[in-house]
Amino acid sequence: MTESDFIARLRTLPLHPGARGLADDVAVVGGLIVTSDTLVEGVHFLPGDPAADVAWKLVATNLSDLAAKGAAVEGVMLNYPLRDADWDAAFLDGLAAVLGAYDVALIGGDTVSLPAGAPRVLTLTAFGTAFGTAFGTEFGRDARAPARSGARVGDALWVTGTIGGAGAGLAIARAGTGDAALLARYRRPVPRLAEGRALAPLVHAMMDVSDGLLIDAARMAAASGVAVTVALDAVPLPAGVDDALAAATAGDDYELLFAAPPGFVPPVPATRVGAFAAGEGLALTRDGAAVPLPRQLGFQHGLSGMGCADPRA
Amino acid sequence: MTESDFIARLRTLPLHPGARGLADDVAVVGGLIVTSDTLVEGVHFLPGDPAADVAWKLVATNLSDLAAKGAAVEGVMLNYPLRDADWDAAFLDGLAAVLGAYDVALIGGDTVSLPAGAPRVLTLTAFGTAFGTAFGTEFGRDARAPARSGARVGDALWVTGTIGGAGAGLAIARAGTGDAALLARYRRPVPRLAEGRALAPLVHAMMDVSDGLLIDAARMAAASGVAVTVALDAVPLPAGVDDALAAATAGDDYELLFAAPPGFVPPVPATRVGAFAAGEGLALTRDGAAVPLPRQLGFQHGLSGMGCADPRA
Repeated sequence: MTESDFIARLRTLPLHPGARGLADDVAVVGGLIVTSDTLVEGVHFLPGDPAADVAWKLVATNLSDLAAKGAAVEGVMLNYPLRDADWDAAFLDGLAAVLGAYDVALIGGDTVSLPAGAPRVLTLTAFGTAFGTAFGTEFGRDARAPARSGARVGDALWVTGTIGGAGAGLAIARAGTGDAALLARYRRPVPRLAEGRALAPLVHAMMDVSDGLLIDAARMAAASGVAVTVALDAVPLPAGVDDALAAATAGDDYELLFAAPPGFVPPVPATRVGAFAAGEGLALTRDGAAVPLPRQLGFQHGLSGMGCADPRA
Repeated sequence: MTESDFIARLRTLPLHPGARGLADDVAVVGGLIVTSDTLVEGVHFLPGDPAADVAWKLVATNLSDLAAKGAAVEGVMLNYPLRDADWDAAFLDGLAAVLGAYDVALIGGDTVSLPAGAPRVLTLTAFGTAFGTAFGTEFGRDARAPARSGARVGDALWVTGTIGGAGAGLAIARAGTGDAALLARYRRPVPRLAEGRALAPLVHAMMDVSDGLLIDAARMAAASGVAVTVALDAVPLPAGVDDALAAATAGDDYELLFAAPPGFVPPVPATRVGAFAAGEGLALTRDGAAVPLPRQLGFQHGLSGMGCADPRA
């Protein structure tokens, strides 16, 4: 069963009012914003990736989902498979580092054993509070976290930071050599928590770029019922990356992608990379001229591993 | 690294105030009671167990943790590994059945792909509200859910329902033949939600019996800083089970185990099976005479799979 078939069937089950139709990266429960991501060894990280970096990435990717909702982090729960003492110890070092870096508390979790040789499957669930409010207040209980579905005709598409660094870093990790800063973009992504809190009250839609700028832009447009055009020449690239199309179809950047009205002046560093219009689908331009869509819009961790990802499929 | 070593190191990290020192089965976050359990194929369920029953068990075991805190269920999040279309479809059928049976809403989750042949690792996170209060209220925000650490000298130890049915059912599942009612106790455990809500305001300590009556009684005593004696002759056994020691060391019953003061009259069917006293550790009696402790106190899913479980090790 494909991921989209599975999720379509999940949508036939009784859904919580805060489930957002299973169409967002977070849910809103009792004044808390909740997100949960699972990383699988050999799918979401390389078996050779250092355990401390896997811990960092597990936490950072979840915090990135909270960042995209403008949430303050309340804490995280960890579901951890014990398998190898050295790896476990290194994982704990990385966990301590990332929790310390973002001032995040551990709430609880579960440890399990794995059959010998089984790939690790790690789950983290992150809890946040909307707009920095204390939970339980009337304000915090509202579902004010910006959804991915709020982009409107005429909005511009913006992205924080740079795009493509993590994709270049993945290639470096596979090759075993290369630029350390790009490798760090892949192994130790930085959740844009402060940027998210600054942007959340101002934007129409927001999500993080986890699977690639193009596929995530297409997902925002599809969820919002509008079309989007991305200007490849506008995509901000980090030092050492010069192929904008490769950058825009690589995953794991964890920058914030948002829709904002015309004339918007972002309160944090961000780059305007496209625009929304009536219609549907994704279009590309370079220096004002149309460019054909690539076969792969991004990095999809679903059933096909790294397959072709068409958000309308 | 053993589970206890790992958890000891987790305790050195910054803990959320609602983490309860990582010593309970639930955490309290923003007025919500949260618990998360992971099931591993080949560890927590048999590869041949029907997928629909695995879904049932995944939900029921988490609801059981909420039941032990007297919580009303708010909803669940699912982290699901896609691998085989038929299994996935059967899992969804079981998920629909268990969510319907307990009127539980789906909040969200994550789907991932697994490398070929990898054992399934399924995580569910369940959210509840204390004592049936609306979340966000002053009352709900308190950490009133009974902990496992509240047993006092002089308290009696009680258990709901019967013990040993799931252990007998596991043997039947392995043998492929046997009593259907006992098999159902293993494959479709019943979370004691109504009983938990009735008991929670009245008891000193409560937890569910997930790993075996003896090991869980010993854990409650250790967490409470007291000793406990279990009377094997008092252990309530289901029809078809007659070995009380085997029953009391088998896991997966998901009955509620609780400590209550002398003279307590339970509001729901329950059996008094022991007593707490000053000191530490677990002792067994049968018809008033001391009985040696068995080598295995229960079923431990930790590093050793089904190894000897000493709660003080």
